[in-house]
Amino acid sequence: MLREDVTEAIRTAVFEELAAVGFARMSIEGIARRAGVGKTAVYRRWKSKLSLVLDLVGAFAAQGLPAPATGSLYGDVRALLEVAAQALSHPVASRVVPDLLVEAARHPEIADAVKAALLDGQQGVVARIVREAVARGELPEGADPDRALDLVAGPLYWRLVVVRTPLPPGYVDDLARSAVAALKG
Amino acid sequence: MLREDVTEAIRTAVFEELAAVGFARMSIEGIARRAGVGKTAVYRRWKSKLSLVLDLVGAFAAQGLPAPATGSLYGDVRALLEVAAQALSHPVASRVVPDLLVEAARHPEIADAVKAALLDGQQGVVARIVREAVARGELPEGADPDRALDLVAGPLYWRLVVVRTPLPPGYVDDLARSAVAALKG
Repeated sequence: MLREDVTEAIRTAVFEELAAVGFARMSIEGIARRAGVGKTAVYRRWKSKLSLVLDLVGAFAAQGLPAPATGSLYGDVRALLEVAAQALSHPVASRVVPDLLVEAARHPEIADAVKAALLDGQQGVVARIVREAVARGELPEGADPDRALDLVAGPLYWRLVVVRTPLPPGYVDDLARSAVAALKG
Repeated sequence: MLREDVTEAIRTAVFEELAAVGFARMSIEGIARRAGVGKTAVYRRWKSKLSLVLDLVGAFAAQGLPAPATGSLYGDVRALLEVAAQALSHPVASRVVPDLLVEAARHPEIADAVKAALLDGQQGVVARIVREAVARGELPEGADPDRALDLVAGPLYWRLVVVRTPLPPGYVDDLARSAVAALKG
């Protein structure tokens, strides 16, 4: 296999192993076996199971993040929710993110790594959306971007990852309108 | 030990084991050892690890649920958020609920049981709050209680269980105001 093909085979194997057995029970041996490569091929690229998973999850999270600039707070929030709804329906999010949060609850170093891989990017995007809304006069000066992220991401995460019920038609539109009302309210 | 003391010892042991090793790695043997009782004492009360945990988590969730009747939508939502913020800061919620969700993502029967133990009660309380707000004319006819639960529970869960940052002062007041604006918006 070419070097890039090995990397791609490992990447695919990691997601399959994560979905099948979860982070806690996953091993570098199992990943290598599934990818059809030697353990050293994995260790040459990543120093541990955690760094491997965080690297892949971080890459996935960064890929999926839009930088909407629709010209309105509603448009930006709606675009962000649309992408987030798709991402949270992906196996990586609906199985792997809860897995990582379980580990994060017990290990502060995992919590820091998950935060860096998953949350910092989202916080950056929402902070920009809020800043531009403030500049347009849609939100008051001093609007808190962390609270904005809670109001935008929270309901969708709750519905798709905690309650796990499919979104009814028009849900993303309704939620965008509600989130904008909440931000202004 | 009296029969009630044995039950209480098992209950305490379960929460300690869950916090220490998590649901996936927890065993009836480990629980019995920590409680200082025989395995049969556990099996006489619960038929499996899952039924044991769901029973205790369900009891905890039901205990904590207020049935606020403050006379206003804002008051009811604020009272619910206050109790939810305390519950989500408790080890049962911040460690055990994410654990159970990981299992739920892989096993539909666990998903159903978690839903019955944790979500049905919350949905009932929020449905009543919405119904009374509609009767008072604070919300339009046909306001969707499931969407209301997403808007009320989601941001708090996101902040306390996913992002895991402490609530700044006044957060619950602000969130109650935002949630009411979102429900009306």
